Amino acid sequence: MPDDTSRFIRACRGEPHDTIPVWFMRQAGRYQPSYRALRQRYSMLQLARTPELIRDITVRPVEDLGVDAAILFSDIMIPLASLGIDFDIQENVGPVVAQPVETRADVDALKPFDATDVDFVLEGVERTVSALNGVPLIGFSGAPFTLASYIVEGAPSRTYRRTKHMMWQEPDTFAMLMERLADMVIAYLKAQAAAGASALQIFDSWVGALSVADYRDSVLPHMVHIFSSLIELNLPLIYFGVGNQHLLEAMASTGASVLGIDWRTPLSQARTMLGPSITLQGNLDPERVTAGMDTAEQGAIDICRAMRGDPRFIFNLGHGVPKETDPAVLKHIVDRVHAMGGDGA
Amino acid sequence: MPDDTSRFIRACRGEPHDTIPVWFMRQAGRYQPSYRALRQRYSMLQLARTPELIRDITVRPVEDLGVDAAILFSDIMIPLASLGIDFDIQENVGPVVAQPVETRADVDALKPFDATDVDFVLEGVERTVSALNGVPLIGFSGAPFTLASYIVEGAPSRTYRRTKHMMWQEPDTFAMLMERLADMVIAYLKAQAAAGASALQIFDSWVGALSVADYRDSVLPHMVHIFSSLIELNLPLIYFGVGNQHLLEAMASTGASVLGIDWRTPLSQARTMLGPSITLQGNLDPERVTAGMDTAEQGAIDICRAMRGDPRFIFNLGHGVPKETDPAVLKHIVDRVHAMGGDGA
Repeated sequence: MPDDTSRFIRACRGEPHDTIPVWFMRQAGRYQPSYRALRQRYSMLQLARTPELIRDITVRPVEDLGVDAAILFSDIMIPLASLGIDFDIQENVGPVVAQPVETRADVDALKPFDATDVDFVLEGVERTVSALNGVPLIGFSGAPFTLASYIVEGAPSRTYRRTKHMMWQEPDTFAMLMERLADMVIAYLKAQAAAGASALQIFDSWVGALSVADYRDSVLPHMVHIFSSLIELNLPLIYFGVGNQHLLEAMASTGASVLGIDWRTPLSQARTMLGPSITLQGNLDPERVTAGMDTAEQGAIDICRAMRGDPRFIFNLGHGVPKETDPAVLKHIVDRVHAMGGDGA
Repeated sequence: MPDDTSRFIRACRGEPHDTIPVWFMRQAGRYQPSYRALRQRYSMLQLARTPELIRDITVRPVEDLGVDAAILFSDIMIPLASLGIDFDIQENVGPVVAQPVETRADVDALKPFDATDVDFVLEGVERTVSALNGVPLIGFSGAPFTLASYIVEGAPSRTYRRTKHMMWQEPDTFAMLMERLADMVIAYLKAQAAAGASALQIFDSWVGALSVADYRDSVLPHMVHIFSSLIELNLPLIYFGVGNQHLLEAMASTGASVLGIDWRTPLSQARTMLGPSITLQGNLDPERVTAGMDTAEQGAIDICRAMRGDPRFIFNLGHGVPKETDPAVLKHIVDRVHAMGGDGA
């Protein structure tokens, strides 16, 4: 059962809590010696497909850092295999798709998502929840646009050219692809909730590449569909993007209960823009934690001071933990944020 | 002499003009068969160091496309050689610096900028102005932060880690570097103006990687210094960044008379945010011009409709012309924008 008394869940809901909750995106990853040791023996996909390893990797940063939530160790590409998409995660490249989706026929050929194809994830969630002793587990999925960008481009892209071309030139094909992916996201996250996840985060990491008009026309309706389908779970729903200051108002209108903010926008400005009823999560520049203890701490202090007393604030980085991070810096940040919030968050 | 009756200059100044002026960032470049042919024979740096070639390359898109301004063909790295920085422009990589600037001693060792070191640029400006028959020439420079990011990182970066580390950990060293670069930018742009440029654009392409607080603390004072030093030229001063929606208000407060806006933010929203007294330049998604005639045209029409009647609007892309662009699409966009603006811009 989710621990509703956790400060993380309470901050998601805007309920009183004792201090500022903190967790880090990619808190399980290459900056950890324990993770690097596992990667000597297993590929990323092997790790993400083995329930015991999912559990061990997911729990470890909670033990090591004292963060207030765990996030499922996985990769946003994982559920796409159920649709019949063949991909690999290549070292120093990222996800590479064998046969990119290009045509309406390619979209029509996608299989319906079947949660039994990701049994290993769901078993990983169950095992993790048992091991976490009440610390909430955040389940997650990629968002349709960000997933579409990978399966249409075939590999990480800086321009998202093919994806944008499909969106503009074949809007019905693009909408059908987004629908198929949205249906997958809904089913995948519902399955994670049924397996015991206490909150759900949707990563739309690359959506900031779109103009406001393109987001509103081609992405927003699918996100509204997703969030309105998940509301019955009564779990916190977190929506996150990068380089997306221009989209924050639209993204806050989707029905998400928590918005993840990258490091660019001051949270106080996001609060003014978005009003008091959405929880804000963020937003230390990830490069601050690679810059050592003092620089990281000063950045964390500035953010916590600006958000002092805000009942809907969760501390995090503005993007994932860089692999060059010293774990001791993260540990110190957790302690410092907890100490700062103790006086009235 | 600048042609003050040109619609481009008049739009920069908010004076009445006959239709919407249009030019394209990187309108001289690899999408042109003529440019690709030259690059078979010369390196990028050879082209940028030969006045006759600067002239020919700069003038060509005015002839081919009918744009309302030329922009000096060069590279933002060019003036850095005068400071003693040894760099190369590598194919498919970008600028690579032999000895990155790391310490205060490295900054102190930079030579003062000497405009005679860029005689070839200034002669290129003079020859181009003569050949342009009154079409305004936009001179340009990189901005201190974007230049610093290249010379501190040593190569293009996605994180700007070293630059940010210097900014946070050695703020005096970083400020001194920014001062030296700002002094260079001022002298370089004044020299271009003296050689006949009718307007000056400062490219701060990567400044969007900074938080608002970091921009205000570590970049804004240098930009204010630059623009206040250039105001005596009485020329339009354009400031441009990418992924910088969060910085637009601060960037508009520098003293720039024109702000270049990337494709993410609707110009109407930028107008509301920034008020009526700054000219806005942009902002078609560059991937629209790689998507063919109809998609490009529809995007251009939407922008021109939204800005109808605004006396301070210059049409451009939101970033440089991609090398895969069909020149015929650009030509069509120029004609279409001119036709749309004819009824009251």
